[in-house]
Amino acid sequence: MKNIKITIEYDGTGYHGWQSQENAIAVQSVVENALSELTSEKISITGASRTDTGVHAYGQVANFLTCSSIPPEKYSLAANHHLPADVSIVHSEEVPEGFHSRFSAKGKRYKYIFYNSRTPSALLRNRAFHVPVRLDTEAMMEASVFFLGTHDFKAFQATGGNVKTTIRTISGIELIENDKVIELNIEGDGFLYNMVRIIAGTLVDVGMGRIPAKDVANIIKIGDRTKAGRTAPPQGLYLVEVFY
Amino acid sequence: MKNIKITIEYDGTGYHGWQSQENAIAVQSVVENALSELTSEKISITGASRTDTGVHAYGQVANFLTCSSIPPEKYSLAANHHLPADVSIVHSEEVPEGFHSRFSAKGKRYKYIFYNSRTPSALLRNRAFHVPVRLDTEAMMEASVFFLGTHDFKAFQATGGNVKTTIRTISGIELIENDKVIELNIEGDGFLYNMVRIIAGTLVDVGMGRIPAKDVANIIKIGDRTKAGRTAPPQGLYLVEVFY
Repeated sequence: MKNIKITIEYDGTGYHGWQSQENAIAVQSVVENALSELTSEKISITGASRTDTGVHAYGQVANFLTCSSIPPEKYSLAANHHLPADVSIVHSEEVPEGFHSRFSAKGKRYKYIFYNSRTPSALLRNRAFHVPVRLDTEAMMEASVFFLGTHDFKAFQATGGNVKTTIRTISGIELIENDKVIELNIEGDGFLYNMVRIIAGTLVDVGMGRIPAKDVANIIKIGDRTKAGRTAPPQGLYLVEVFY
Repeated sequence: MKNIKITIEYDGTGYHGWQSQENAIAVQSVVENALSELTSEKISITGASRTDTGVHAYGQVANFLTCSSIPPEKYSLAANHHLPADVSIVHSEEVPEGFHSRFSAKGKRYKYIFYNSRTPSALLRNRAFHVPVRLDTEAMMEASVFFLGTHDFKAFQATGGNVKTTIRTISGIELIENDKVIELNIEGDGFLYNMVRIIAGTLVDVGMGRIPAKDVANIIKIGDRTKAGRTAPPQGLYLVEVFY
């Protein structure tokens, strides 16, 4: 029996998120079906992150157990023949028995893309959050720094999460402005349900002048979800990498 | 009567190219329909470039004549309510009577995107040319320089073009490597039919070692299409800007 780790890229537009559910096509099932066809076994995988409907990934990670004699590094090439074009396995390798994609994860990096222009972008229509009002990116950068470090992020959590603690550490955050495209990169040891989207939405509210940049420190401190900003829509979010 | 210039972004995946034709949906007709609905006139537009099926644009330019009292700069915002999400008008303005999107153009800039990895990219599946073999980008850069300047580009033209001369001037070419994504930016006074795709395909053949980089100068000189490389597929190509 081998434990195989796979790294998966997907365009989340056509899927009801990562996790399999009844009556809706999820990325997890599509990958499980491809691996089951390939190995002629019934393969079950666990993903590192349960991304929502419409959220994308460059580097979702999953693992599965198999008795197949397929060389571990060949799954990426072989499985792609069984996958639709909007899901691809970009890497595969054998990992120790105890490896678990979610529980072994030490951190994650996400990207959130804003498209800041009066008119929408055809090419980024399912790939970014279109914000038609001019954003003050300097204020957004000023506000973003308050997220760095270890905080109780309960103001940045949607209901539906199920966690023992809402304390998380953000080890890196950057905002890159490239003409109309604004990219938020955020890295941390873990993220609460919808945390990146609420941080992104709060930064947009700062950029629009609805929330003063300096108030963000206090919003984190008092931990009241209603004081933080909106939840930014899923199509701007990308799971970039999971660290182990 | 006003002459209105519009700049159009589109995802070419769902269209049979720019130019309207029977029994196939083209970007031109979709834009004409939106403008006709908006103005309650029968609007005809001419595009600067007749992009092929699957080719994208950040900055296609077209113009049309109208008696409508809509302020010229408002077309971009207003027309988007009548357009599908994969086509957007990003700018509009009034131009002098004699302006013609194609004949007044002084130059164009295109981008071609290669995705160089053993496995395909889900997110770039309709947005790049997947090359699974490792490309020698240094050789590609060496070869690309030969295209600069004024040359007879008849070796880099597909049949079906209808032009008086095959002499063109390439004023800028650059190759940017960013991990698995290789971007070719090319700017010139005009391009023959499929010229950018044949240049991109020739550079891939150089990168794969099928054509030595130094041979490209001679291929341009002798003007034999069969000596140049393949025609790279349409989905990697983007019309970025038209200069006037």
